[in-house]
Formats: sequence, C-alpha cells, structure tokens
Amino acid sequence: MLDITPIKFRDGKLFLLDQTLLPKAERYIEIKTKEELWEAIYMLRVRGAPAIGVAAAYGIYISVKDIETENFADFKARFSSIRRYIESARPTAVNLFWALSRMEEKLCGSEGGPLGEIKERLLAEAESIRLEDEAACLAMGEYGLSLLKPGMGVLTHCNAGTIATAKYGTCLAPIHLGQERGYGFKVFADETRPLLQGARLTAWELQKAGVDVTLICDNMASIVMKNGWADAVVTGCDRMAANGDGANKIGTSGVAILAKEYGVPFYMFAPTSTIDAATPTGKEINIELRDGKEIYRLWYKEDMAPPGIKTYNPAFDVTEAKYITAVVTEKGIVYPPYEKNLKRILEK
Amino acid sequence: MLDITPIKFRDGKLFLLDQTLLPKAERYIEIKTKEELWEAIYMLRVRGAPAIGVAAAYGIYISVKDIETENFADFKARFSSIRRYIESARPTAVNLFWALSRMEEKLCGSEGGPLGEIKERLLAEAESIRLEDEAACLAMGEYGLSLLKPGMGVLTHCNAGTIATAKYGTCLAPIHLGQERGYGFKVFADETRPLLQGARLTAWELQKAGVDVTLICDNMASIVMKNGWADAVVTGCDRMAANGDGANKIGTSGVAILAKEYGVPFYMFAPTSTIDAATPTGKEINIELRDGKEIYRLWYKEDMAPPGIKTYNPAFDVTEAKYITAVVTEKGIVYPPYEKNLKRILEK
Repeated sequence: MLDITPIKFRDGKLFLLDQTLLPKAERYIEIKTKEELWEAIYMLRVRGAPAIGVAAAYGIYISVKDIETENFADFKARFSSIRRYIESARPTAVNLFWALSRMEEKLCGSEGGPLGEIKERLLAEAESIRLEDEAACLAMGEYGLSLLKPGMGVLTHCNAGTIATAKYGTCLAPIHLGQERGYGFKVFADETRPLLQGARLTAWELQKAGVDVTLICDNMASIVMKNGWADAVVTGCDRMAANGDGANKIGTSGVAILAKEYGVPFYMFAPTSTIDAATPTGKEINIELRDGKEIYRLWYKEDMAPPGIKTYNPAFDVTEAKYITAVVTEKGIVYPPYEKNLKRILEK
Repeated sequence: MLDITPIKFRDGKLFLLDQTLLPKAERYIEIKTKEELWEAIYMLRVRGAPAIGVAAAYGIYISVKDIETENFADFKARFSSIRRYIESARPTAVNLFWALSRMEEKLCGSEGGPLGEIKERLLAEAESIRLEDEAACLAMGEYGLSLLKPGMGVLTHCNAGTIATAKYGTCLAPIHLGQERGYGFKVFADETRPLLQGARLTAWELQKAGVDVTLICDNMASIVMKNGWADAVVTGCDRMAANGDGANKIGTSGVAILAKEYGVPFYMFAPTSTIDAATPTGKEINIELRDGKEIYRLWYKEDMAPPGIKTYNPAFDVTEAKYITAVVTEKGIVYPPYEKNLKRILEK
C-alpha cells in the first residue's frame, strides 16, 4: 500500500514533507505558526497545486486555532488578515487561493455558533479538502489504469505524483494503483530540467513505492520511444484551454510530439478544476518566465555556463490538443473533439 | 576574425586548450611527453574527433623528436610502441587511429633519409592534417552558409564547434563565418545533457566569438521552434550510414523530429570521413552506453537522484534520414535520396 503523503495531520499537529531536501533526506517539518506555513509554501517545501491547497487549509486552521476571543467579527477579521498573509507566499498558485477561500466560506457560513465549534468546523473542512483531493486522484488513477495493461512501459515528465497532491498524484495515480495490484509497469522518468523534479521527486517517489523506474535525461525520451520501451506517456496538466490545449511543465509539448511521431499514446491528466472553459485556446495561456540561473547554476552552487550568458527559461509550454490522445479527469476520460467533450465533462 | 583553436603549435611547442576547465577558465597546457598527451586525451582535455586527430599527430611528433638514434628500424620500433600507447588513451576514437596511422605511413615512406629530416617530415605531416581539417571545416562553413540568411535564428545541439576541430568546427562553421561577415545570427544552444557540452562549450565558444547566443535546456527546443525563433537546426554527425541515418550526440533525433513537425529545416554536418558506406542503415550503428553517474551526479559532486536509481544513459542516438533536410559535407551539400547521393559525393 502506498504510504507517501506530503501532508500529515496527527493529534492536532500539521507536518509537511520538506520536498526541497528530497531525495537526500525524507524529513517532515511541523508547521506551528502562520510564518512557518508561509515560509514552507514560499520555499517550495510543499509544492504541487493540490498539495499546496491542502497544506494551506490545514495551515490556516493551525494559525487561528489558538486565537482567544469569543467575538466572531474579531475572529473573522484576524482570519482574513492571516489568509491574505498566507496568499502572499505564492500569488500565482490558484489552488492556494481556492482552498483558503473555501475555508473562509465555511467560517462565514458558521457565524453564530460558539468559536470553539467553528474552529472544529474549519478543521473538518480542511479534512474534506484533503479527502476530496485524494478521492479525485484515486478516480483519475482508476480511469488511467483502464488505459494501461500489465507490464507496459510508461514514460512520464516532471512530477505529478503523490507528493504533489493529497495522495496518489494525478498522472502517477495509475502507476501507484498498478503497483498495488501487481501490474509491473516499467516507468521511464524524464529528469525534467531545469529544476529536476523527475530526478529528485518522481524517481524518489516511485523507487520508494517499489516501482521499476529508470531515470533518463529529457533528451533521451526519443531513443526510449524508438527502442519500443514506452507503450504510453502520462503527464500532469497545469491548465487546459477549452479546446484541449494543455499547459504543463516545460518540455511536455516536445514529449507529446515525439509520442505522436512514434505512435505512442499521450495521456494528459487534468482534474476538472484545471480545465479553464473561459480560455479558448493555448495561445491565450501566459507562460511564466523564470530566472536563467536555474539553467546555468543547476541545482547546486557552481555555474555551468560562461558568465553573462543569455538564457530563455520558460517554466511551462503548451501541448496542442492534436497531440493529446485523451484527457484523464476525475469524472472520466475525455477524447477528441475536446471543444465539445471537455464542456460535457465539466457539466457532469 | 575567429581566434579560438583547441591546438596551438608555436616555436616547436604543443599547447592544448584544456576543455575540462571551460567555461570557468581558458587555459592551455603544454604537452611535452607522450604521458601528458595520453592523459589529455583520456581526460577529454582535448575532445571532438578531428581535434583529437590533430592533437595526436602533433603529439606523436613531440614524443619522438628527441629520440637519439640514427638507426631507422630502432626509431620505427619506438615510434610504433609510442603509437600503441597513445591509441590506448581512447580506443573508440576512430580519428585518433586514423591520424596516427597516417603519421606512421609518412614515417615508413621516408625510410632511408637522415632521421633529422624524417622528424621534420613528421612535423610537416601533422601540419598537413591540421590544415586539411581546417580547410574541410571552412568548406562546410561556406556550404552551410549558403543554406542560411542574415538574421536567422539557428538552433544547435551539443558542440561541433571550432574547439572540436582544427578550427571553425563542422556545424558551427557557418555560424563563425556568418559572424565574420555580419550575418547577425541568433543562436539557441541546447545545454545537451548529461555532459552539458552546449552550456559549457558551445555557449562559451559562440559568446567569445561575439555571436548572439541564448542557452536553453534541451526540453525547451520545442517552445523555441513553436515561437518561430528557429529558422534552421544545425548539428554535427559522428557517423552516417549509407542510407543517410546519422548517429550524433544523444538528443539529436528528438530535435530533428521536432524540426520536421514545426517545418524547420534540419541540417546535419558530416565530413565525408564520417560517412560509412559499409553500414547500410542506422540500425547497424551500435550505441555506446555510459555510466548513469553522468545523469544523477551532474557535472559536479552531489547526487541529484535517490541512491541506487536505475538509469539509461546512451551517449548517442540515430536520426533517421527522413528527418534530415540535407547533409553538409566538405565536398558539397547532399539532398535525398541519400542512398544514391551520398555514394556520389564519396566518389567525388
């Protein structure tokens, strides 16, 4: 049974797996204050949209549970102030805002009751957010597994795994479920430059779960497919446009094009919350540009390129819908034409 | 004018640019003995097939020039023994064997003359090997330049540059010539994992030559092409089969497939010495597998993946002929059908 989760809540205490230390050390840090939560989100100790949401939900509960007042307005004002503070840790993380907004709605809906009871409802809401995410991942895992066969070779890029969610992950959920059921997948993990989420996180997570995983450089995906070792590609998705164009970690679009050329099915795992009906196509998705240091300084200290070198460091790219064999959501598998079928799944 | 060469012979002294120190330091080491030559080849201080050949030719001259004997048979025996010793530094480097064999042929053809004169002929032969390589690179540069227009964006992978040859390089020769003539190319250099020849060598070489170069991770080639920033792709070639399949640094085949998908011409630069008429297709080309440490230990010391992680680390891949727009040789540009036209250029 899979026993890796990035967020643990035990006996009233919140623990986060410090992902910046992986794969060297597996260490949970206790979050006791809003400042510690802020730092953990800002420093990417907790990462992955769903995991950030879950951590923030528990974290705001931890941050307000010891406020000693019986005045609801006073409590709410302090809650809102702490919420804004936590949000400032990662202003582009949609799930952070979503989870905290859901916590504040629960608070507002509880007006009138004793504060002690309201605090318990906040904790229960955090628990719900965590369990709903785990359920969504499990559902994506089952749908994804229906697309795969025992013994298959599966190539993945970046980390959309259990440590990026409450549990199981999105595109790695079928791998974990398959592992529990003896499917014997052979996984190829792209190292995923520049930040090496594949080498540091996916390789660690799958190895720990007992999965047969082989680490490759991103530029080896072509020869792996040519060798016939990849029967499917699975990736996560950060944001999907209404036409099925999907933004995900830089490099995903290249893997999808190779998969099409070699006749390997390419499956993108997108919880319905990432499908943005208001964005018509991938062209309207803005690509975050990050510091070139991430390229030339690698993960550690020393520079690998000449001083002053110009860089281009996009964090994401858009995989055009025509390269995506199917989109796996928690509500089911969506096939082309995406324009129509994504709309249908959102209405489900 | 381009002023970067990996091998300098000045006043009877041989100097090699220590490429393992790039881009941090630009340091030439003097080669005074066969042991120093062996170490420089073995440690990849000199790298790139043509550059190794040139270094070995000068190096064996340096190693034998002080042998004090007037007995030809004695001299030849010691030459042959030193030759075998130098060859053992990199037994897979075809150009190393080719250059030393050419030097020994010159020696044998000189039997009868005074040893002092024979030694001068050996030096002259080393000079010829260097100048012929420079001329071949210049020719490839001119042919390559005829395929490009001023202001173009050009994407390249690995380093087939001036420091891998006597001068100018193979696929970077048109870039250097264009730079001398004010073409204003915008070059995108793939960093080229795992050994980062793009980041360490190509970025350094082009920056030093004043070329507008942007360093990207390998997995960013797709978005660069999608952005319309690459009007052509140029790469080197380690070995080309009779049907036009070309083996080159790992990742080249993926770049070629992306180029085809985005409609960008893909030019492979292959000196005729790399075209192997005896190998029918790329399937018969054996791919060297290297230590996985190169992937997870990066260039420096610390591991980036969990201990014991399984890796797959091919040094090369084969780009199928169907993805190659044209092959640039020192004798001219070859277009499909390659089977017929490569044979024709070899007979030229």
